[in-house]
Amino acid sequence: MKLASLRDGTRDGQLLVVARDLKTAHVADGIAPTLQAALDDWAFIAPQLESLSSLLNTGRAARSFDFDPAACMAPLPRAFQWVDGAAYASHDTPAMRQGGSDDFLGPTDDILLAHEEWGIDFAAAVAVITGDVPVGATPDQALAQVRLVTLLNDVSLRNLVADELVKGSGLLQSKPATAFAPVAVTPDELGDSWRLAKLHLPLRSTWNGAVVGQPNAGDDMAFNFAQLIAHLCKTRNARAGTIVGSGAVSNKDARRGYSCIAEKRRLETTGGGEPVTGFMRFGDTIRIEMLDKAGKSVFGAIEQTVKWRG
Amino acid sequence: MKLASLRDGTRDGQLLVVARDLKTAHVADGIAPTLQAALDDWAFIAPQLESLSSLLNTGRAARSFDFDPAACMAPLPRAFQWVDGAAYASHDTPAMRQGGSDDFLGPTDDILLAHEEWGIDFAAAVAVITGDVPVGATPDQALAQVRLVTLLNDVSLRNLVADELVKGSGLLQSKPATAFAPVAVTPDELGDSWRLAKLHLPLRSTWNGAVVGQPNAGDDMAFNFAQLIAHLCKTRNARAGTIVGSGAVSNKDARRGYSCIAEKRRLETTGGGEPVTGFMRFGDTIRIEMLDKAGKSVFGAIEQTVKWRG
Repeated sequence: MKLASLRDGTRDGQLLVVARDLKTAHVADGIAPTLQAALDDWAFIAPQLESLSSLLNTGRAARSFDFDPAACMAPLPRAFQWVDGAAYASHDTPAMRQGGSDDFLGPTDDILLAHEEWGIDFAAAVAVITGDVPVGATPDQALAQVRLVTLLNDVSLRNLVADELVKGSGLLQSKPATAFAPVAVTPDELGDSWRLAKLHLPLRSTWNGAVVGQPNAGDDMAFNFAQLIAHLCKTRNARAGTIVGSGAVSNKDARRGYSCIAEKRRLETTGGGEPVTGFMRFGDTIRIEMLDKAGKSVFGAIEQTVKWRG
Repeated sequence: MKLASLRDGTRDGQLLVVARDLKTAHVADGIAPTLQAALDDWAFIAPQLESLSSLLNTGRAARSFDFDPAACMAPLPRAFQWVDGAAYASHDTPAMRQGGSDDFLGPTDDILLAHEEWGIDFAAAVAVITGDVPVGATPDQALAQVRLVTLLNDVSLRNLVADELVKGSGLLQSKPATAFAPVAVTPDELGDSWRLAKLHLPLRSTWNGAVVGQPNAGDDMAFNFAQLIAHLCKTRNARAGTIVGSGAVSNKDARRGYSCIAEKRRLETTGGGEPVTGFMRFGDTIRIEMLDKAGKSVFGAIEQTVKWRG
């Protein structure tokens, strides 16, 4: 099934079940008020949501309405945990960063920032949302707790990174609010594109109308989501609603383009050159989307504009 | 007023108003079910909680009961944001770390860990809990959003730190679950001990029954809480229920002892010596408490035992 959170003036939005084709939706508030509430009691709630999903997908849901991604918040507008693994980079063990999860952006929310000079970058990534994962969980145990899959735009302020790295306490100011796709989906919706704890579909990033990347998220992922979750849980539990990101999707085949500008700039400087691709400017747009094998959007699109916040 | 969360089998506990002397408490579920719910709508909820607090403190609350810190979860058993500033260290700007906030420990919960060899350390610190703070807030604007003050034990696994620092993505596995005092209090409860956005009282750490530190949290704090929150909000909002920690409280006067073992070991190695104080062992206890000028416990005590999780 596919789930979303309708912007209704509350902090957590209103839980929606969305049809497979993203054309219609149905309020699920008779089942659970919010996605977090559903995740908190998944074994009891999910089957009820599945029933509604089934009705909706067969055109039998009583009060369905047209689904509008622009009316959506992030599937979890705020979460109790958000960590981002650098799963496409080369390390012995995953590098994983604890992120701010109190104020996520919806799929069409503007990226409001004070200074272009901060070095504004997008990053297209895949994420899973978990149930309760106990400390010490194996990758197999972790995989069984993957409830939902979605996409995100993990915005970075690249020119603030160096000063934060020196302090050794991780990235904070260089990581403004993260944006999510309108819809999160259960793994079974992904068919055999979801296998070995990876999502084997191309992730397309379109910057100012030009496709700049479409790497396959299943290729060159050094650590799969099961391994990422197990890494997180080495010394502590991860509780329901934990979001675990893949890091910017990147393939070794450079012809597939890039999912963040920093990667493009690294390629430009490899071999001694200068980076020629600049970061995002006010007015720039970024669109991030994943199509299935039939060419249909799986999660809906992230479509954001960078704007001066004044 | 003083607030706590009663362990009732739910993920967020049940909101309690606690008497100033920590002897009695009253369920606040007629006002707000959880502390997060109160913080989400503070302007409306807080005055009602204050009325109940006033009844309780004057012995007129209808159904008060004996307050038991051991029945408490953390004031926020899970939070949407937890950041820890290293406010007692010397930097040009605060070093601030994004922490895991999905699974906090209550004041008397055991510290369950798999290996002593990880280098188990406590860290006694002060924290504030905020309302909504907008991006770009000044320190004065941030200070006006301080809703509550509490204590915490920010447990570290010191022998896992080095490997994580190399990767540059911040501390994750080296930071297991953080524990909090039973009670969070509004700044007005602190009288003139709360001034200039600092808490001017000694923070006492007792390790295996011996007092090892009682530095004053108001002394030598290089960045006050208003500055810490403003630092956090340079590039993004902080939403209601954000917890901002001070880092381990430390005074330049070494006679006041230490709030974390790592500090003691640093002092031992200054001048070329070897660290002689080892980290915590299974069975060790740590008690963290703050007394007011009259010798009364302000927040109740954190009292934890380190145990092998098996």
